[in-house]
Amino acid sequence: MKATILCIGDEVLCGDVLNSNGTFFAKELTEIGIEVVKHVVVSDDEDMVEGAFNDAVNISDLIITTGGLGPTLDDMTKEAIAKVTGRPLEENAEARHHVETYFKNKEKDFVLTPNNFRQALFPKGAKILSNDRGTAPGALLEIDDKMIIMLPGPPRENTHMYNKHIKEYLMNKLNKFFAVKDYMTAGIGESEIEYRMRDLLPDLDGVNVNTYFNDSGVKVKAVSKADNLKHAVENLDKIDDIIMNNFKEYIYSVKGETLPQKFVALLKSMGLTFSCAESCTGGLLASYLTEIPGVSEVFMGSAVTYTNEIKHSLLGVKNETLKKYGAVSSQCVEEMALGCAERFNSDVAISISGIAGPDGGTPEKPVGTVYMGFYYKGEVTYTKYNITGERKRVQMRSAYYSLNNMLKIMQ
Amino acid sequence: MKATILCIGDEVLCGDVLNSNGTFFAKELTEIGIEVVKHVVVSDDEDMVEGAFNDAVNISDLIITTGGLGPTLDDMTKEAIAKVTGRPLEENAEARHHVETYFKNKEKDFVLTPNNFRQALFPKGAKILSNDRGTAPGALLEIDDKMIIMLPGPPRENTHMYNKHIKEYLMNKLNKFFAVKDYMTAGIGESEIEYRMRDLLPDLDGVNVNTYFNDSGVKVKAVSKADNLKHAVENLDKIDDIIMNNFKEYIYSVKGETLPQKFVALLKSMGLTFSCAESCTGGLLASYLTEIPGVSEVFMGSAVTYTNEIKHSLLGVKNETLKKYGAVSSQCVEEMALGCAERFNSDVAISISGIAGPDGGTPEKPVGTVYMGFYYKGEVTYTKYNITGERKRVQMRSAYYSLNNMLKIMQ
Repeated sequence: MKATILCIGDEVLCGDVLNSNGTFFAKELTEIGIEVVKHVVVSDDEDMVEGAFNDAVNISDLIITTGGLGPTLDDMTKEAIAKVTGRPLEENAEARHHVETYFKNKEKDFVLTPNNFRQALFPKGAKILSNDRGTAPGALLEIDDKMIIMLPGPPRENTHMYNKHIKEYLMNKLNKFFAVKDYMTAGIGESEIEYRMRDLLPDLDGVNVNTYFNDSGVKVKAVSKADNLKHAVENLDKIDDIIMNNFKEYIYSVKGETLPQKFVALLKSMGLTFSCAESCTGGLLASYLTEIPGVSEVFMGSAVTYTNEIKHSLLGVKNETLKKYGAVSSQCVEEMALGCAERFNSDVAISISGIAGPDGGTPEKPVGTVYMGFYYKGEVTYTKYNITGERKRVQMRSAYYSLNNMLKIMQ
Repeated sequence: MKATILCIGDEVLCGDVLNSNGTFFAKELTEIGIEVVKHVVVSDDEDMVEGAFNDAVNISDLIITTGGLGPTLDDMTKEAIAKVTGRPLEENAEARHHVETYFKNKEKDFVLTPNNFRQALFPKGAKILSNDRGTAPGALLEIDDKMIIMLPGPPRENTHMYNKHIKEYLMNKLNKFFAVKDYMTAGIGESEIEYRMRDLLPDLDGVNVNTYFNDSGVKVKAVSKADNLKHAVENLDKIDDIIMNNFKEYIYSVKGETLPQKFVALLKSMGLTFSCAESCTGGLLASYLTEIPGVSEVFMGSAVTYTNEIKHSLLGVKNETLKKYGAVSSQCVEEMALGCAERFNSDVAISISGIAGPDGGTPEKPVGTVYMGFYYKGEVTYTKYNITGERKRVQMRSAYYSLNNMLKIMQ
């Protein structure tokens, strides 16, 4: 099966944002064995969308479009598809209901305009794909052997819709059986994993192992595809043994969890509470954890202490310590972790203090120097990192490294 | 002038890497007023490259290709261009010299093969663009009014070549002048802005006004292009008056700042310090602010208080208040804001408490109910929102809304 990914919208076209939609869908389709033959980006111009769509129909069996489903007159995707496929636009009752319901609960500064009902128009015969995260519903149109999937542009909407509505649908269409396993790793680089795996893994028919870098580490994904499930599973098992044996120390989850998700799950399973004290990460660690639904069971809070005075008054770090060793020191993070655990009355605590940059570095403590303190079962330890890259990267890495260290201490 | 950016290579096509080439060239071309009409990504397949190139020639005056200039038989870009343009490949002396010289100084484990001389073949009439950073030279081919620029795939090679050889060449070709202004808005939806602007803005030749949605609000970008700078500026001024007069209350910056950047800049200019107290946003507001270099001048810290006990012990919220009105109440956020300003000794303070979901909602206080408290010059006020969407969206919106409200209070 061949696929074209057609992204409609000026933001990518003008270079304002990266085409993350193209990358996401390419990765997902490749994973389940659909050959992506073309990515195209065009603006909300009817002729351009029509031309690109026409070409896509000629060279592929599956066309995924993103964008151009908005309420404005610029949004041309459905018009163009209607024209090329000869399926006229008509108001879809389900889509109209979606738009109305979405706006009914909308925040006060949004106003429903007649334009919004343009979002309820779809080519005749289209099956609506609901969108929990935005106003524009998507749709699936099957014509002969061709599948056309129309999705809204924002990644947080369309990736969610893909996982909810489309992935399984496509897998069923392929008429193949899949066995899949994700290995979430931290503390090892992507190129090192790839280099080592090249010699370790046998070449099995229908089996693909790929690595994906994300902020919290590297995900290794093994996909085994076969004509029956037994065969797919057998092949996956062979690969699984090798990966588990050789990368055990780096794999923190085989359930697809991110580091924060794994950490929160572990706290819950152990019945422990957590708090943190952040200086250079400025609330980022707490925000990673509080993204997770139900975290309030284990999370007490965080003290973002950006000045020495607040480190002293809020966490009880000694003025003497701050004066003698500075805020970026093992002594300071140990006192921060201890003070944090006491103040928030938590079983587990992490503290982070460092120099995120771009300014503030010294020869002894250059930008990227980060100390972390770990409080667990009455003991306090610390670790130190030198993290390269710009400010945001130093903050993100610090937050994730601290969680990976704490996981190792607790397990 | 219209342009197509054609990227050739499997890595982007399969979703292994983002199409940063497309974004880089799109941004560069847009900036100098070349209209990018299409991005295309195809694999090193002669038919696919030929088809894409043929289409590009039909719809654009400028075609930039990246990739497919390598030494292997898979590399098909030049063959396809030769075929479509009717300019046969021939060995280019300058290109051959480049390849030979490059390899002469190359590290020892690279072996020069006859294939490498394929890299010296170019369509007849092509002007060679030297590549300091890799083996594959690029080329520029002018045929009638069309410009075809062939560049290697790696960004560190082709971006360098663009800046060295191409940018000035293109600006000379254009012979146009530009005036640009960005309006950063918050508190108004993208479709409402577009709907209202449609009636308000006159249709001026060479003037384009577009809206771009981002997490903190909507950016309105006005671009005016003319044969001389005076004319471009005059046209922009006409648009500027209308936009400023009609959307004044929503425009928080005309310097391209995000809400957190604007807020930090305002605090600095007023010589004020800031702290926050976060419940449902869980550190996100603090992390938005601490992303900004130099924020330590004005930011004292944040208390992420996830439990009632911590709201009481850390911020001094009365147990009576928590019992009588709950943590998600105007009374609670007002006490939080006041306690926060006192505790952190700051001039300005924001507090946020709400129900981010997916659980925890009640009929009186459904998921998305968020209260915010604002401390400024000894006064405390509050506001309440009902924010739709999933957990992360409620958190993000809460953080941005709180900043927008505080900006209004301070200005």
